Amino acid sequence: MIKVGIVGGTGYTGVELLRLLATHPDVELTAITSRKEDGLPVADMYPSLRGHVKLAFSSPDKANLEQCDVVFFATPHGVAMAQAPALLAAGVKVIDLAADFRLKDQAKFEQWYKIPHTAPELIAQAVYGLPELNREDIKQAKLIANPGCYPTTMQLGFYPLLKAGLVNAGGLIADCKSGVSGAGRKAEIGILFSEASDSFKAYGVAGHRHLPETTAQLQRFTDEKVALTFTPHLVPMIRGMHSTLYAQLNKDVSNEELQSLFEEQYKDEPFVDVMPFGSHPETRSTRGSNMLRLALHRPEGGNTVIVLVVQDNLVKGASGQAVQCMNLMFGLKETAGLQHIALLP
Amino acid sequence: MIKVGIVGGTGYTGVELLRLLATHPDVELTAITSRKEDGLPVADMYPSLRGHVKLAFSSPDKANLEQCDVVFFATPHGVAMAQAPALLAAGVKVIDLAADFRLKDQAKFEQWYKIPHTAPELIAQAVYGLPELNREDIKQAKLIANPGCYPTTMQLGFYPLLKAGLVNAGGLIADCKSGVSGAGRKAEIGILFSEASDSFKAYGVAGHRHLPETTAQLQRFTDEKVALTFTPHLVPMIRGMHSTLYAQLNKDVSNEELQSLFEEQYKDEPFVDVMPFGSHPETRSTRGSNMLRLALHRPEGGNTVIVLVVQDNLVKGASGQAVQCMNLMFGLKETAGLQHIALLP
Amino acid sequence: MIKVGIVGGTGYTGVELLRLLATHPDVELTAITSRKEDGLPVADMYPSLRGHVKLAFSSPDKANLEQCDVVFFATPHGVAMAQAPALLAAGVKVIDLAADFRLKDQAKFEQWYKIPHTAPELIAQAVYGLPELNREDIKQAKLIANPGCYPTTMQLGFYPLLKAGLVNAGGLIADCKSGVSGAGRKAEIGILFSEASDSFKAYGVAGHRHLPETTAQLQRFTDEKVALTFTPHLVPMIRGMHSTLYAQLNKDVSNEELQSLFEEQYKDEPFVDVMPFGSHPETRSTRGSNMLRLALHRPEGGNTVIVLVVQDNLVKGASGQAVQCMNLMFGLKETAGLQHIALLP
Amino acid sequence: MIKVGIVGGTGYTGVELLRLLATHPDVELTAITSRKEDGLPVADMYPSLRGHVKLAFSSPDKANLEQCDVVFFATPHGVAMAQAPALLAAGVKVIDLAADFRLKDQAKFEQWYKIPHTAPELIAQAVYGLPELNREDIKQAKLIANPGCYPTTMQLGFYPLLKAGLVNAGGLIADCKSGVSGAGRKAEIGILFSEASDSFKAYGVAGHRHLPETTAQLQRFTDEKVALTFTPHLVPMIRGMHSTLYAQLNKDVSNEELQSLFEEQYKDEPFVDVMPFGSHPETRSTRGSNMLRLALHRPEGGNTVIVLVVQDNLVKGASGQAVQCMNLMFGLKETAGLQHIALLP
Repeated sequence: MIKVGIVGGTGYTGVELLRLLATHPDVELTAITSRKEDGLPVADMYPSLRGHVKLAFSSPDKANLEQCDVVFFATPHGVAMAQAPALLAAGVKVIDLAADFRLKDQAKFEQWYKIPHTAPELIAQAVYGLPELNREDIKQAKLIANPGCYPTTMQLGFYPLLKAGLVNAGGLIADCKSGVSGAGRKAEIGILFSEASDSFKAYGVAGHRHLPETTAQLQRFTDEKVALTFTPHLVPMIRGMHSTLYAQLNKDVSNEELQSLFEEQYKDEPFVDVMPFGSHPETRSTRGSNMLRLALHRPEGGNTVIVLVVQDNLVKGASGQAVQCMNLMFGLKETAGLQHIALLP
Repeated sequence: MIKVGIVGGTGYTGVELLRLLATHPDVELTAITSRKEDGLPVADMYPSLRGHVKLAFSSPDKANLEQCDVVFFATPHGVAMAQAPALLAAGVKVIDLAADFRLKDQAKFEQWYKIPHTAPELIAQAVYGLPELNREDIKQAKLIANPGCYPTTMQLGFYPLLKAGLVNAGGLIADCKSGVSGAGRKAEIGILFSEASDSFKAYGVAGHRHLPETTAQLQRFTDEKVALTFTPHLVPMIRGMHSTLYAQLNKDVSNEELQSLFEEQYKDEPFVDVMPFGSHPETRSTRGSNMLRLALHRPEGGNTVIVLVVQDNLVKGASGQAVQCMNLMFGLKETAGLQHIALLP
Repeated sequence: MIKVGIVGGTGYTGVELLRLLATHPDVELTAITSRKEDGLPVADMYPSLRGHVKLAFSSPDKANLEQCDVVFFATPHGVAMAQAPALLAAGVKVIDLAADFRLKDQAKFEQWYKIPHTAPELIAQAVYGLPELNREDIKQAKLIANPGCYPTTMQLGFYPLLKAGLVNAGGLIADCKSGVSGAGRKAEIGILFSEASDSFKAYGVAGHRHLPETTAQLQRFTDEKVALTFTPHLVPMIRGMHSTLYAQLNKDVSNEELQSLFEEQYKDEPFVDVMPFGSHPETRSTRGSNMLRLALHRPEGGNTVIVLVVQDNLVKGASGQAVQCMNLMFGLKETAGLQHIALLP
Repeated sequence: MIKVGIVGGTGYTGVELLRLLATHPDVELTAITSRKEDGLPVADMYPSLRGHVKLAFSSPDKANLEQCDVVFFATPHGVAMAQAPALLAAGVKVIDLAADFRLKDQAKFEQWYKIPHTAPELIAQAVYGLPELNREDIKQAKLIANPGCYPTTMQLGFYPLLKAGLVNAGGLIADCKSGVSGAGRKAEIGILFSEASDSFKAYGVAGHRHLPETTAQLQRFTDEKVALTFTPHLVPMIRGMHSTLYAQLNKDVSNEELQSLFEEQYKDEPFVDVMPFGSHPETRSTRGSNMLRLALHRPEGGNTVIVLVVQDNLVKGASGQAVQCMNLMFGLKETAGLQHIALLP
């Protein structure tokens, strides 16, 4: 059994890790930290865990995380970079669900996240935890930078097109929509029920932190300079993410060839579902599951190809992806503990 | 492996059975019928099942249900009574999620359901499938009448009080609230998103079919004549049921004694969670799980005791309960395939 | 034109007052205070008001509220009692939407609201602002205690029954459900979209502040001792309140007589709609309007009478009622500025 | 007073017309037809209208629509074209909220709507009812083709850019999102609460009927050939529409110049609100109002300009726009009866 610690278990990615790990066949939940909730049984905060998780929160100093085989950071940006060095030195593997190690360019990190990076020596060794595009590196990794939710959809959606050189990398558009849980469990007016329900809006159009992360990753797949317009929106639903990706074809290619390209790319992936050409995937078809689904469209047979991508932002977009990485790092079955079927309706 | 057939798999209790059974360790999904969707892969109708369920719908005549060990009826009232006799004769066990065999009083059935009962000879042998109050009978049963969603909450909430003779059986009130999925997957104006969202109402106050079922079952626990006022309401949420039960104490009893009574009653139950006195259970703490949670209140220490009961109407209120019965009927672990943790948030 | 000031315009009752008053034919919005938002145009905080309200927030010291004819307090408890004495002394009428003057019993106020009352000399002169039961006093009032949202539904629902002596005043039950906006515009975890959406729960069952207010008011209508069990619940909708009221009949009375009793009582009321016997009023039928609708039920012709009451908690349950009081206090048409038809769907 | 008739008042645009017209100062509701609901008081179907609308539905043959000054068709496609000729001949003005007269190209109409056009002689005289771009023609019109909801947002968002020749007309993208009421009041599975709530999806990507309408109208503003990619999505909210428009600048222009262009264009428009550059309009800021709000963005100062446009799909996107046209046709104040402030929260 792999001993698992979680730093920052009171947020949504934390409780989602608990949901996934509590029934994972190869895992023993060993420690979960919260400075504020020291001593509180986890199930008192999240009654959904009553009968499943007996662990209590403990303050970070008492948690003895060095005894773990792996520690997940389900924390705001800046926490993992402070604690990861000591854990790694103690032989503990680290998976950071925040952004501390997502950007290889330290200056860019500090520009977008407005904090100095306190463990720059670890940036190079951190592995970007997107298994579908990075599986072999993840298997060897000691430190994982778990991808952002939006970037996961954008990369898996654009990758086959960029790799095949079929589209203009300099004119990509991603019109993305996220459920409100993506904003986290924070006491903020803007995500109150009475503010966010029965309404729809864009946000962060002037610049969202997932833009540099996505651009940098996409650039790995093409020599052409990537330029991405990324527009996030807030949907009145709890979980779920829908990215509508637009690219301009620069080669003559049939719909069948496009479809084959994607099917071929993902045919062995347990968590990527290429739906039939022209499908309209619904976010609810992934609710609570680690599956990402996508479908291709080509309006009026023109030069624009549209990729519709859906996932559960808390699972494939965060905690499920992190568990998938853990499975790979420890030589477990990649799907272990991740076989949940989406809750529909 | 137990061979399972499902009649009527296109509704919400049907797809929920598929979700639960597809990952059940002891089950082999063998047949699922739909006259209308003959030949259609189940996963084409419910993309959430893509990658999990390969079965296609088949028309009832082709389905060869006699080869199954057990057949679930996730159908409207009237279907199970037509098909159960032949299946039972062929040695197949039957679990009916509709009401055909819930009322022992045939006349009452026909009065409330407005159809003649076509298999009255089976009514006596049908076992009411509420494991917490009927476990031994269920183990021996060939034919299960799976309880209604509301009745499950009302029975498990009132039972300890009635059995202990602590409350006035003639003045029970159940103010119940259900998510919209309880109304089924029917094309009806009243349950459209634009009608049912962002609003709240009572319905069926003049008489709901779950009233005679509940009254008859509650009557089994007391010699006093049961009189129940039952008011169902529609909540703008997909899944979830919350029953607020009111009873008048007729004996001097402390809050601690009341709490002990419930804890003692349900201490070995894997799917009933007695929360601390004064808790406010939320429906979402059961979303997707087979757990029913309840909590006791006693406003201002007076004679009124309030029991708050929550469950997922499609799981413990329907399909999960049916699987729990199946487990008992076949000598499996009662919790097999039912260990899902609620999806929260 | 009546000059109107609003203290605390950043909350939901404040912005609702603005919506109603901005198109009121006899009103001139003169001042709106917010210490924190001094100088900010109201429409910058609430874009719905762009083009309708030009006013900016001003800090309380600069607002010069004494120039107003009437000042509304859309503030937390404790603010009106601090500022009302000076305003009243200056000849300004005051309408408090909070609880400062709702309870005539000072000790009870301090027990339930946990703060000392700093203007006890005003309690006696404050008029409880429920026009349907208190119209003449309101016309003469200088200081209005605007009723709580729940108490409005409970009083208008129980009043005809209590006044006619038809029900047992010692055994009233009110099972009430409120939309989330009733909790106000506060940055609290429990009312986040991801917490309150797609779920349902009771809250405050051990004791809600609207209980003593309602009990005290109901007691005015009967000599029998009133005992009320009041259970509030949170509904995943923005606006709307539904109260399901239960009372035990102690006289032989027909359904027609019950219906006539209510129709007679409210026949001249512009904002109370007695629906046909057996109706199921929906909260959305009052969304954005000042109408309260109710309907009577009597399950199986027994002794229990049920009154279903719906209103918009922010309109008839708060700001609309306050404007209705203002209209009466200034001799305007009672319905002036309150003719909005509910938004449906 | 203008005598108004409504054909097909049972759908959402019909009840919305009733809400707007019932309090319109210059209108007398004269007739409302429904073959199915003949004799039923309108307020029995829509309790929100109780106390405001006394009219009953009457079957079309009895309605005597010729006595009206204007008749609105809030019907499915195909009805107006059948009845308009006789009404027009009788001197009655006609406003069609459906698509019968939106496309000047009859063949295109028949191709997209799959029905023959039965009044082709009227197509030429029909005026497209978008007041901001067509005001003078509307004033003279006898027959109005009221725009579709999506086309209204796309036209008002793209118009200033196209007219000024600042963007590439051949590469426009409109990623649009609509509340569920846009699908109408039809008993269909896909728009059930349990299907559409807590989820998000695209639909009709292969070709939506609002595409030819929008392309044809946009083409009026530019000599360059217009090519538009239009992707509609379904949002789990009742009302509201958000269009995210992307265009490629082909000239060197500053953000200030872009902003001025829009402000200048719409400075006298009572129902178009150009918000400050970089704003994120929310659909709820238009809920129940006839206001359309828009804001400009330019990510990283590049060549892509984004226009965010919001409106209430049932008001400015349908019934409110129709009333605005009526006001113009009859020489009334353009804003008469349309001064509702959006319901927020």
